[in-house]
Amino acid sequence: MAEEPTRATAPQSIAQPEGTFRRVGVVAKTASREALRTAAELAEWLVRRGLEVSLDESTLRARGDLTAAPLRSDSDVDLVVVLGGDGTLLSVARSLERPVPILGVNLGTLGFLTEVGRGELYPSLVRVLAGRYRLEQRSLLRVALHRGGGQTQEWHVLNDAVIAKSALARIISLTLTVDDHLVGHFRADGLIISTPTGSTAYNLSAGGPILTPDLPVAVVTPICPHTLSLRPLVVPDTSSIEIVLETDREEVYLTLDGQEGSSVGFRNRIQIGRSDLSVQLVKTSGRSFFDGLRSKLRWGG
Amino acid sequence: MAEEPTRATAPQSIAQPEGTFRRVGVVAKTASREALRTAAELAEWLVRRGLEVSLDESTLRARGDLTAAPLRSDSDVDLVVVLGGDGTLLSVARSLERPVPILGVNLGTLGFLTEVGRGELYPSLVRVLAGRYRLEQRSLLRVALHRGGGQTQEWHVLNDAVIAKSALARIISLTLTVDDHLVGHFRADGLIISTPTGSTAYNLSAGGPILTPDLPVAVVTPICPHTLSLRPLVVPDTSSIEIVLETDREEVYLTLDGQEGSSVGFRNRIQIGRSDLSVQLVKTSGRSFFDGLRSKLRWGG
Amino acid sequence: MAEEPTRATAPQSIAQPEGTFRRVGVVAKTASREALRTAAELAEWLVRRGLEVSLDESTLRARGDLTAAPLRSDSDVDLVVVLGGDGTLLSVARSLERPVPILGVNLGTLGFLTEVGRGELYPSLVRVLAGRYRLEQRSLLRVALHRGGGQTQEWHVLNDAVIAKSALARIISLTLTVDDHLVGHFRADGLIISTPTGSTAYNLSAGGPILTPDLPVAVVTPICPHTLSLRPLVVPDTSSIEIVLETDREEVYLTLDGQEGSSVGFRNRIQIGRSDLSVQLVKTSGRSFFDGLRSKLRWGG
Amino acid sequence: MAEEPTRATAPQSIAQPEGTFRRVGVVAKTASREALRTAAELAEWLVRRGLEVSLDESTLRARGDLTAAPLRSDSDVDLVVVLGGDGTLLSVARSLERPVPILGVNLGTLGFLTEVGRGELYPSLVRVLAGRYRLEQRSLLRVALHRGGGQTQEWHVLNDAVIAKSALARIISLTLTVDDHLVGHFRADGLIISTPTGSTAYNLSAGGPILTPDLPVAVVTPICPHTLSLRPLVVPDTSSIEIVLETDREEVYLTLDGQEGSSVGFRNRIQIGRSDLSVQLVKTSGRSFFDGLRSKLRWGG
Repeated sequence: MAEEPTRATAPQSIAQPEGTFRRVGVVAKTASREALRTAAELAEWLVRRGLEVSLDESTLRARGDLTAAPLRSDSDVDLVVVLGGDGTLLSVARSLERPVPILGVNLGTLGFLTEVGRGELYPSLVRVLAGRYRLEQRSLLRVALHRGGGQTQEWHVLNDAVIAKSALARIISLTLTVDDHLVGHFRADGLIISTPTGSTAYNLSAGGPILTPDLPVAVVTPICPHTLSLRPLVVPDTSSIEIVLETDREEVYLTLDGQEGSSVGFRNRIQIGRSDLSVQLVKTSGRSFFDGLRSKLRWGG
Repeated sequence: MAEEPTRATAPQSIAQPEGTFRRVGVVAKTASREALRTAAELAEWLVRRGLEVSLDESTLRARGDLTAAPLRSDSDVDLVVVLGGDGTLLSVARSLERPVPILGVNLGTLGFLTEVGRGELYPSLVRVLAGRYRLEQRSLLRVALHRGGGQTQEWHVLNDAVIAKSALARIISLTLTVDDHLVGHFRADGLIISTPTGSTAYNLSAGGPILTPDLPVAVVTPICPHTLSLRPLVVPDTSSIEIVLETDREEVYLTLDGQEGSSVGFRNRIQIGRSDLSVQLVKTSGRSFFDGLRSKLRWGG
Repeated sequence: MAEEPTRATAPQSIAQPEGTFRRVGVVAKTASREALRTAAELAEWLVRRGLEVSLDESTLRARGDLTAAPLRSDSDVDLVVVLGGDGTLLSVARSLERPVPILGVNLGTLGFLTEVGRGELYPSLVRVLAGRYRLEQRSLLRVALHRGGGQTQEWHVLNDAVIAKSALARIISLTLTVDDHLVGHFRADGLIISTPTGSTAYNLSAGGPILTPDLPVAVVTPICPHTLSLRPLVVPDTSSIEIVLETDREEVYLTLDGQEGSSVGFRNRIQIGRSDLSVQLVKTSGRSFFDGLRSKLRWGG
Repeated sequence: MAEEPTRATAPQSIAQPEGTFRRVGVVAKTASREALRTAAELAEWLVRRGLEVSLDESTLRARGDLTAAPLRSDSDVDLVVVLGGDGTLLSVARSLERPVPILGVNLGTLGFLTEVGRGELYPSLVRVLAGRYRLEQRSLLRVALHRGGGQTQEWHVLNDAVIAKSALARIISLTLTVDDHLVGHFRADGLIISTPTGSTAYNLSAGGPILTPDLPVAVVTPICPHTLSLRPLVVPDTSSIEIVLETDREEVYLTLDGQEGSSVGFRNRIQIGRSDLSVQLVKTSGRSFFDGLRSKLRWGG
């Protein structure tokens, strides 16, 4: 394996991949020059190895000379390599229409979803193409916003859905039901409904628990609750979680994975439950979930 | 149903039970005169209805004239009625050797486990004996304390296992692993390992989340952690959770359901995972888990 | 005192006030019909007792026939009666240019600032006019927003100043210094800087401590901090607290007492310290600060 | 200043001290060989500089040949050098009968009270003896335990007084009053009453706020409260804080600075208020309180 790069440089030699992946999509973080450059370099590396490559539009636009097809949400790829951070991976995960394995490569500080650093990009890919990886299934939540009059919008989130008041609005009132059982009427800044994957994101900042990624649950965590006895609540993800906005005349938003948003009106109903979709994260290291936690949260050891 | 009492008085008439329960055990809260009196009254009520009754030793001692067998942990009863509070039910649950349905009757403030009030005792029992009830399965955790030299003690808990320093001891150091993966080395007053059932007990006071009772998980919640980034952790209950005490010369205890205790020594290892045993709570009302939460925690609505 | 009303009705008789207050301002909660009605009734009651009355503009507009002068921020009144809730009192407190005693009357649920209920309005006023009251001094914080280019806006708040991201924005970065000492660079949803008076408001929802109203301090409490070890910080109110927004391209707002807002730009500097102004709350009952807390937070006893 | 050691070695030359300190007490951490060795070395260094030295008993016993008097709580020293950690300094502070300046030297990880590292011992002392230092006043709390029958014990604490149940006890009930005003009846594991100095110790682990050391306040922080709306409470240190234990038959302890303990019985009353005593910490660096916080709590920057 002398030809394999161990640093952040593209290898000079070409080897035949032994794995099962034939068509690879590459997505670079929007507005990151380094991500675009790395994407172009990676595309060439993959093509030299005989793989078909699809590139996201920004990269294609920036490097028009690349031998690559445009990547679409329904593109027939076997593997997607994301170059960026957790945010880029979240947006790719939300857009995929079927469970394609995703390898997340972080160009900055390591994330919870993108555990491969820039320097490990090619060594990791060599392992992946050689079939030396495992797939970690991550479930998504389906979020539907019912506006009344039959208007419904729908998303699938890997981290969380957040219902929150705008900075200038006053505290809002929400009714929460789980499987048609009333949980309560609450006054708070908002509510986070998180997957186990998202439990280490916004949920953690708001005081929610950490969950191992494989659990079949959703966490409902209040943001700055006025009701002091309100605590994070863990329910089966097969539950139907419903939130109704009881406040009129205040600006309230639904945010998906912290990236997309939609305004929520008086009496609008948000319904959340397990999605049919899921995401398959490609893991090439022996690093456990707890290894990641320990280093990120500086737990001793 | 004119013969059914709707108040806290024993009915005068006798009716044939239509249910499947034939042998009923009755356990009264130790040291509660009211519980003993209610147990005696209940025993007579059951006998008049043609059921066989077993009574716990305290009640038998107090009312030696009762027509009842002594209740033992391996007694061949189909139903146990607990008269007392959540604490009494916890101790019965820990002592049972097979999953016998338990009806919890609360003689004081309603608990999370004992939802039937004193005034609903006989109406509830009539429903139960008529087969109008549902069983709610609650999983237990198996807790093993390995002292070294092959010495091991074992318990099965319905609420929680708590490793905590004594009031006079200084902060203690613990190593936590889950399925042999290191989670971290922590300094804290202690650690609570709770079932979903126990999540509304000590875990809640220590800042842990609330979990619906059916979830196949355990919660690990630190007590006053010195490591400020330490947060409650939810893991599958099929995991093997291990805690090793790394502190010498401080008094540390393992407490089971807040009722039994054992001293923990330097380098002792506590291993926790799903128990083979479970508890079946008898439910006669349409009250949901959330109804109980909402009224206890005074959530709006 | 047979002529004093003990219910929510205006008294029919007229008595001479024995107190020192001669000119009374009355402010009704905007958009509350009940407040406007009560204000008109109160104005008549005061006039009948020989007092001069000034009324806020809304009330004057709604009841043009009242014998009252318009109330201005510099009006020469000795006492202001606020009819509404804590919110109305906060806005009056922010607008006053000198420390006029304020009697807060709550027309809904009792607040922390408006402890007199609708039914106690006239009995309380009779006590006040008879000189049977005490003044509780509440300090304000001066908040200056420096936008660069010499643009500065200034407010005086009784509860709090909040720097927070909008619902759709991502987490923001802030630099906090106290008396030119760097406290830290933080990532959070925002920061609350609260007076002791405001400690029971938004600060409490965000996890901040409760402070007795007389303390010469300010509390800095993070909102959903990404930095998990970040905790509420109590500093002398004579300190100069400075916050600089380090995030570009996200919508961030400064909110004053939850009522007024201003947008905050990249590198804008917010400077907070003790105000020269203060508020004098008129207290007619023997109710302590802790009595209010205990009943609002349902602490036992 | 070539003769001054900049490392952890004793200087070879002798210089005349220019400062005002003439009689120095040295206290080494009990049971630390390194502390005893450093104390002996330091004693020689001080004697060579013409200062009178008093040594704590352990050091004297271990190094009988030293030219030093035994240090007593009423010894007539101008300065005490503590070699150990925050714990050693706390116990010295509690034992002093008048406000003698204390220089805390940490032989392990830097503490909040002992900011001088082993390597800065001699450079710091040279600055101190030359008069280049500032004194930071830290107030103490007076803690009196009234057992009934006129039995009273009294302590003066620099960090905190903790009332807490033993590990095997159940939750306890406490009544809290401040200046004879009832705050509430609470059920919790215990209560911490902390000085601003102690706010970064146990109080922080239990969820209490951080206070700058100069504030004239005390913080009352519940440990794992059963009453979920119970929050840390900041009151003037001139208040009389009283706690009465309402629980019978459970083991409860009062702990002073985490070092001394006393058992608390049913209906025993603990009274806490500002002490007449205070401690003067000797500061030789320009390091602010926030610099210490930031590095210990890993706040950015």
